[in-house]
Amino acid sequence: MDWNGALEHSFEEAKPSLGKGAVADYIPALAGADPKAFAMAVIGVDGAEASIGDDTTAFSIQSISKVFTLTMALSARREKLWKRVGREASGSPFNSIVQLEHERGVPRNPFINAGAIVVTDTVVSDHSGNAPANEILGVVRQASGNDAVRINNEIATSEETWGDRNRSLAYFAKSFGNLENPADVVLKTYFRQCAIEMTVRDLARAGLFLTSGGKDPLTGKCFLTRAQSNRVNALMMANGHYDMSGDFAFRVGLPGKSGVGGGILAIAPGSCAVAVWSPGLNSAGNSLGGTVAMEAFTDCTGLNVFSDKTPRASDYRE
Amino acid sequence: MDWNGALEHSFEEAKPSLGKGAVADYIPALAGADPKAFAMAVIGVDGAEASIGDDTTAFSIQSISKVFTLTMALSARREKLWKRVGREASGSPFNSIVQLEHERGVPRNPFINAGAIVVTDTVVSDHSGNAPANEILGVVRQASGNDAVRINNEIATSEETWGDRNRSLAYFAKSFGNLENPADVVLKTYFRQCAIEMTVRDLARAGLFLTSGGKDPLTGKCFLTRAQSNRVNALMMANGHYDMSGDFAFRVGLPGKSGVGGGILAIAPGSCAVAVWSPGLNSAGNSLGGTVAMEAFTDCTGLNVFSDKTPRASDYRE
Amino acid sequence: MDWNGALEHSFEEAKPSLGKGAVADYIPALAGADPKAFAMAVIGVDGAEASIGDDTTAFSIQSISKVFTLTMALSARREKLWKRVGREASGSPFNSIVQLEHERGVPRNPFINAGAIVVTDTVVSDHSGNAPANEILGVVRQASGNDAVRINNEIATSEETWGDRNRSLAYFAKSFGNLENPADVVLKTYFRQCAIEMTVRDLARAGLFLTSGGKDPLTGKCFLTRAQSNRVNALMMANGHYDMSGDFAFRVGLPGKSGVGGGILAIAPGSCAVAVWSPGLNSAGNSLGGTVAMEAFTDCTGLNVFSDKTPRASDYRE
Amino acid sequence: MDWNGALEHSFEEAKPSLGKGAVADYIPALAGADPKAFAMAVIGVDGAEASIGDDTTAFSIQSISKVFTLTMALSARREKLWKRVGREASGSPFNSIVQLEHERGVPRNPFINAGAIVVTDTVVSDHSGNAPANEILGVVRQASGNDAVRINNEIATSEETWGDRNRSLAYFAKSFGNLENPADVVLKTYFRQCAIEMTVRDLARAGLFLTSGGKDPLTGKCFLTRAQSNRVNALMMANGHYDMSGDFAFRVGLPGKSGVGGGILAIAPGSCAVAVWSPGLNSAGNSLGGTVAMEAFTDCTGLNVFSDKTPRASDYRE
Repeated sequence: MDWNGALEHSFEEAKPSLGKGAVADYIPALAGADPKAFAMAVIGVDGAEASIGDDTTAFSIQSISKVFTLTMALSARREKLWKRVGREASGSPFNSIVQLEHERGVPRNPFINAGAIVVTDTVVSDHSGNAPANEILGVVRQASGNDAVRINNEIATSEETWGDRNRSLAYFAKSFGNLENPADVVLKTYFRQCAIEMTVRDLARAGLFLTSGGKDPLTGKCFLTRAQSNRVNALMMANGHYDMSGDFAFRVGLPGKSGVGGGILAIAPGSCAVAVWSPGLNSAGNSLGGTVAMEAFTDCTGLNVFSDKTPRASDYRE
Repeated sequence: MDWNGALEHSFEEAKPSLGKGAVADYIPALAGADPKAFAMAVIGVDGAEASIGDDTTAFSIQSISKVFTLTMALSARREKLWKRVGREASGSPFNSIVQLEHERGVPRNPFINAGAIVVTDTVVSDHSGNAPANEILGVVRQASGNDAVRINNEIATSEETWGDRNRSLAYFAKSFGNLENPADVVLKTYFRQCAIEMTVRDLARAGLFLTSGGKDPLTGKCFLTRAQSNRVNALMMANGHYDMSGDFAFRVGLPGKSGVGGGILAIAPGSCAVAVWSPGLNSAGNSLGGTVAMEAFTDCTGLNVFSDKTPRASDYRE
Repeated sequence: MDWNGALEHSFEEAKPSLGKGAVADYIPALAGADPKAFAMAVIGVDGAEASIGDDTTAFSIQSISKVFTLTMALSARREKLWKRVGREASGSPFNSIVQLEHERGVPRNPFINAGAIVVTDTVVSDHSGNAPANEILGVVRQASGNDAVRINNEIATSEETWGDRNRSLAYFAKSFGNLENPADVVLKTYFRQCAIEMTVRDLARAGLFLTSGGKDPLTGKCFLTRAQSNRVNALMMANGHYDMSGDFAFRVGLPGKSGVGGGILAIAPGSCAVAVWSPGLNSAGNSLGGTVAMEAFTDCTGLNVFSDKTPRASDYRE
Repeated sequence: MDWNGALEHSFEEAKPSLGKGAVADYIPALAGADPKAFAMAVIGVDGAEASIGDDTTAFSIQSISKVFTLTMALSARREKLWKRVGREASGSPFNSIVQLEHERGVPRNPFINAGAIVVTDTVVSDHSGNAPANEILGVVRQASGNDAVRINNEIATSEETWGDRNRSLAYFAKSFGNLENPADVVLKTYFRQCAIEMTVRDLARAGLFLTSGGKDPLTGKCFLTRAQSNRVNALMMANGHYDMSGDFAFRVGLPGKSGVGGGILAIAPGSCAVAVWSPGLNSAGNSLGGTVAMEAFTDCTGLNVFSDKTPRASDYRE
């Protein structure tokens, strides 16, 4: 398949959106991002890669890190994880606390902040011997195949300084007995995982195992069982874009996860992983240009899990 | 593909759940259903069919009718429809009015009751020459290929008698200017569409166009464009099972729509349509045994849009 | 006591607010009110009266009518009334339906619209022999001592035409079994009671029984027991001004009830009843100038139930 | 007036309720309270006192302390305080965070926990030279005339240990910029103020200034202006009993404030202050027996701000 043509088309379609949208400013360290920046990368299950734009610039993956902590937690806790976090859309913004009160401290899903904090809590428990954030970084490095992926300390510190809303969510869950560790310990890890930085090429590569039943198709490393991998994809489809998850499913048709740093990772099962980055955000906190690019990409390639015509790996090998 | 083996396996898996769950009792006409009844049918894009259980019993499709009115409305109103109804999960029960107030009369999605009433309102406007409920019935008959599909008048009357909650939703939308027609006219149509009765075989057949880009693969009749068809599937995935849509996506991995009559229609794009019926409901109003059967069916066949191993039509033709 | 001086002071204080605020425009028949109109009247327990401004203009009392239907319902149903309507502040706007869903059709208090509709339902049941709205009008005429008080049919018709939000509330309560009569019958009465018109002098006179333990101090007519009368006052204090009831209690310190026609009735137990009218409304739907005038009046006279210095009837008789 | 007879009657009426209701168990240090304990005290504006029951047992005043911090904050910040906290009923439980999200960090009123934390924040700022909790204790000692009133350190520590819900509320307010001080500093003070212990006699005495326009009628010490004192009373009436404030106003008819330690302070302006203690709580967290006793007390004495017959100081002096 001609990834390059698809990426060029996507970039063209996104250009009118670049510079629009608001760069995340809840922490000063993110507010300086260039709103016109754009990068996109794709990697197929056979290892074929392509990229376009600022593809060597590392950006803050923010909430996309929740995919990797969920992978770790689901692998370790399996079905027991769902006693502590739900699987339903919240119908509320990502940092909302309303649902958490109605449902007595059990967050709606692992991708709203409260749910991700609970997921990170299990990772903290399960890696108590070592700094849990380093364990998370280790998994991301392994998935991306790049040991240069790192945590940006300036951003981690900024997250911590401006993290009162997340602190509130953590103490709220704690008050219902839904944290195993002290809230500040969990938060320290959570703030660090959000500060992981990587390029779109690293990010697409890191998501490749989700295209292939939980097993990296290039290295053979198993991150999840096939059933678990399908389910992570289902959760991304239903909840990966905060209060606009339905819109992303509707327009793009692939499971995906966004971060307020402007990144989006999308998964075409059996086919490829795609990553995009553009810091201008829409009202729900998802990359504006990135979403447009993803929509153009799936329109162009036909990759859409809801379509009868979505191509698969075997389609490219002739 | 051996549909029969998959259906037998699904029935076996569902058996322990039959008779559990609560039969819908919000209207007397539904309360008499046999909680142990079960039927399931599948039809492939090539027309191959199989079924099991009470497959000649017609049941009330209830909210599954929303898929057909959405098809009609989307075909007629296209993108303008989305000014009047959203595409996001509501995070609330199907008959909730809370979201409607926060969002000033624009229902969250076309599958919660308020959204479906708004969708039906467009159908009423667009078919004013004729009884709109008969137009809807006509589309369902055309899709199912069975002119014997009918509206159960006893159930329609019972819906009307016990329809105060839906009446409240309709007047609420009306008060925000989001109904084109008088609320009672829209409701009369809505109550009739919910009272459509058909067998699981009819229902699977009626959903076949959604497996094939909006075009019936057997008759060639076009109901939707491919893009629209993909989007109806996306909406079913995100919102087809009320407040447990995430759970269905997670467990079954196919777009689906349930009704409180105990039916579920699921779509495997490029492959087949599946229908199941079992009147006992879970707490969210979805068929308990039907969901178990659907999960068993996709586990067994590998049909799961989130999987790299989901089979397609071409896989069956050897 | 020199009522005239207090009224003049109140009018002066209110003048800068007149013409500000928005005239109710949810029905066309109210939208034509003069936003600069102002009238105020007071009547003591000894019958001494004073008034100022447009005191011969009859205005639409709207929600103030809820005080009189509550009086009728409480007298007839006594403690049983509280099974159907609560006594707590809703924390939500007057026409909100959110609380009604959380609390399964039992409105928070008799002064939010949903609660008032339930109260009117009891009046409809208890006066089935006659047109219930005429019974309500009869009570208001008796309390005000003026048989010329009337229902404005144009406004009643306008309420009915634009009454979808109230219709939604009524059907919602009905769906939970909390209406004894058909929703449309209750609504017809409700729309008529809201269209009662009277002057500030009539209104103050009509409230006089609430200053005196439920018994009209001038005619001796008993409307309520003392305990019931105290409780109507308590309900007005807590809930009489929609989502700004706390603000009115804080600033004015008297039980009161407002209507979107711009009227406010306030009660100084043991002392006097005060009525004010000015059609410009604040964001919560209460008279802007009327609230300012009431605050000035109680500041000036010392009439404030929370104060140790509030004067009583005996203080004036020297 | 014969306070003793009224107290005896109140105790009798409360007896069937004693031992019913649930003792607060959110912190272990409170869970050990005797559910059958009861004490009640009254003090008139002329200094006449009476008491009954366990009137020498000091109990944890908990949320009643909010009356004293509000007094301090209102005296220091005056009208500016209302930019940071509202005056309306929340319609939600005392520790709810829902409203706080909808209203962007401005708590509905000073008596829900979030509002009280914001009030305490101003006290912390205004008394930075000294331990703010000691300043609060100093005011309570001055108002009660008893220097033996103390903070129970065991309870303060227990509050801190089990204070995650309050911690969540504080960080939530902080995230909206509505705390001047670090959340943990404010919470430390808040937990200590809640742990103040005193007898019913001390408590009634401490509330006496609110019966008399903000000035202690026995010592002449001014705590508030008359207008401020009236307003504290109005706030207690509207919001003093959490989600059952309307019920207390309805049944008792006096401004009051409850605490989960089982205490209630009520104010009869111009007449007397009443305190009751009984640890068994109703579903809203207010003393069950204490509320019954307060209702009996006002029924018996006629003290009810909504009544024309409420006695005042001058009535006792003959």
